[in-house]
Amino acid sequence: MFFKFRKKPDDSIRRKADEKTIALITEITAGVHASVKHAQLPSITLPLRSLANVVYDPGKGYFELGDSKKVRTLTVNTIRSFAQTLRLMATSKEMVESNDFATKREAYYVSKNWGDCRFDNQAESDAIMDDIEAMAAIHGLSREQLRFYPESHGGSVAGNLIVVDMDPETQDAIEINCANLGSGAYSIPRSVEHLGFRTGARFVLAVETGGMFQRLNSHQFWKKANCILVEMAGVPTRATRRFIRRLSDQNNLPVYCFVDCDPYGFANIYRTLKVGSGNAAHINRFLCVPNAHFLGVTPQDILDFGLDDATHPLTKTDVKRAQDALDNDPFFAAHPKWREAIRQLLEMGVRAEQQALAKWGLNYVIDEYLPRKLKDPNSFLP
Amino acid sequence: MFFKFRKKPDDSIRRKADEKTIALITEITAGVHASVKHAQLPSITLPLRSLANVVYDPGKGYFELGDSKKVRTLTVNTIRSFAQTLRLMATSKEMVESNDFATKREAYYVSKNWGDCRFDNQAESDAIMDDIEAMAAIHGLSREQLRFYPESHGGSVAGNLIVVDMDPETQDAIEINCANLGSGAYSIPRSVEHLGFRTGARFVLAVETGGMFQRLNSHQFWKKANCILVEMAGVPTRATRRFIRRLSDQNNLPVYCFVDCDPYGFANIYRTLKVGSGNAAHINRFLCVPNAHFLGVTPQDILDFGLDDATHPLTKTDVKRAQDALDNDPFFAAHPKWREAIRQLLEMGVRAEQQALAKWGLNYVIDEYLPRKLKDPNSFLP
Repeated sequence: MFFKFRKKPDDSIRRKADEKTIALITEITAGVHASVKHAQLPSITLPLRSLANVVYDPGKGYFELGDSKKVRTLTVNTIRSFAQTLRLMATSKEMVESNDFATKREAYYVSKNWGDCRFDNQAESDAIMDDIEAMAAIHGLSREQLRFYPESHGGSVAGNLIVVDMDPETQDAIEINCANLGSGAYSIPRSVEHLGFRTGARFVLAVETGGMFQRLNSHQFWKKANCILVEMAGVPTRATRRFIRRLSDQNNLPVYCFVDCDPYGFANIYRTLKVGSGNAAHINRFLCVPNAHFLGVTPQDILDFGLDDATHPLTKTDVKRAQDALDNDPFFAAHPKWREAIRQLLEMGVRAEQQALAKWGLNYVIDEYLPRKLKDPNSFLP
Repeated sequence: MFFKFRKKPDDSIRRKADEKTIALITEITAGVHASVKHAQLPSITLPLRSLANVVYDPGKGYFELGDSKKVRTLTVNTIRSFAQTLRLMATSKEMVESNDFATKREAYYVSKNWGDCRFDNQAESDAIMDDIEAMAAIHGLSREQLRFYPESHGGSVAGNLIVVDMDPETQDAIEINCANLGSGAYSIPRSVEHLGFRTGARFVLAVETGGMFQRLNSHQFWKKANCILVEMAGVPTRATRRFIRRLSDQNNLPVYCFVDCDPYGFANIYRTLKVGSGNAAHINRFLCVPNAHFLGVTPQDILDFGLDDATHPLTKTDVKRAQDALDNDPFFAAHPKWREAIRQLLEMGVRAEQQALAKWGLNYVIDEYLPRKLKDPNSFLP
């Protein structure tokens, strides 16, 4: 059995991040404090988050923030947002010290006892939080390490993986064997920074739909293929992306994506998982998964696996999204194979869902499709 | 430790349902076969699913189908839907026999090799599936027992509960200890008919938002309160509803609902969990949770817990939904306490989210709100 309980697991990653967070907040606020003491107007320097300051690095393969900065100096006009920035940083520091967290929504409500500098709505608190997050990102700290958690949990996980967590009270190690959850699965928590992994799996299979995940899990495909199944349920949440990234990094595991053959699957689900998005360039370094590859369903699969009569015509939105990917997206611009595949799809004029494989029988996907594809990972789209 | 592995767990519930499903399908198709043999036009009798045939039973507390029937006789016009009904029933029988399942989407694709009686779109297959489901419901069989599974999995679960599942290959018992999943949780599978439960918990706490679930789980509130936490994530899915229902039935557990104080929380989330909906009257008997009670947040809580400055004004949609509940909903009509609460909310003109309690500190909900409320379950709304 896998359920060995070891006292006091290795918590050094979290403790180091916590020290770094506190050091960063202390440093910034010490600067503010010094200015005030010397009767100077204090200021905080923050990265510029506008698209003008977003750079695509083909080498790294993802969008990141450039070097432009904005300086928030205390004035009559900025006094409220200045105070809010400091209070939100103080909240972060308190949460690190008490090993707690707040969702973005909770952080907004916490401000309700801040008197005049309370947030009027969550758009306000989110903007300030994004500023702090961007600043922390430059120092290698994620929003979760500041202890601000997203509202959405991650997807479900099943397969040859032991997740090492910690009992919050006793701090004993807790080991969750994802091969032993029956027809159910492990639900990824909102923050995964503290998790450890033990696995002998060969790869991670990231699956778009819940129905397909249930099929692969119920038939224990992960046992046959020696892999770890992760359900993305559409565009993966922050927690899912970070979970796959850390799992892949720490165990040097390739990540194979199994999604619908349509522009949304290519340009939204897969591309977001692999390189992140331009809108949130300051977080891509934590969330993107460079080890990701596109297993299928590819346009060529529609021909190779005889799915033509189980397709649907591309909608106008599909065509627009595909054209946009070809014309404006640096990720697809960097990959001729992807441009070829998208052009092929546009010529065929149809899309195919992963569940369309059921046309050949419910378990064709397990008995035929996946084994054939997995024989040649080099053929996966980049 | 809880991880005892027993060979061949009690699978009698599933086996009995399987036998019943096969007997039902065999009986109906034998009737069709006999008609054909005697050169008569075969017919299938199905319950009428229109709202005109929906009855609210205040005693049972939920909407159910009345006695009206429709007869689908084989004619030139019905030949396609007649054949589709039979093929879908045959698919169900095959899946029971091979212990497999299909999502609604997969069932649609499976038809692609049915030649002329293939479904043109999923709306078509869903309608036929609803017919078969309604017929099976009369005989006490759910859609999941016909082996048609929903696309969406259930919510997350944590707390004092051991879920007993079965290894699909070896059929050994698998026991999942929901008290031992760290900051993560157990993700409810799409069908829960085969699950067993062992618990010493006092109640189930069904939580609306993911953020609140994470807080209660991370601080192990379930240990302190001896309960089971279930994350609904908005209006609960079929799987979540059925899971809570079976858990509550089998262990005689009350279910306390902790949702936002707004008309959507009352009339959509809570009411759906407790009594189901009129649109899907044929499934309420499987999915509704008569043991459910509304812990909060109530309109009175906004006053009692000083949340007035952490509220938001009711929107037009909120007011319309509240008025609709007062005017047209037999559930609220049957409960004066609910009508009073809704009127109070309309008078106050505001709504409050469960996370608004963070105004008094992130863990006020754990240290103050829930303990105070739980002292007096008789005060919960019905």
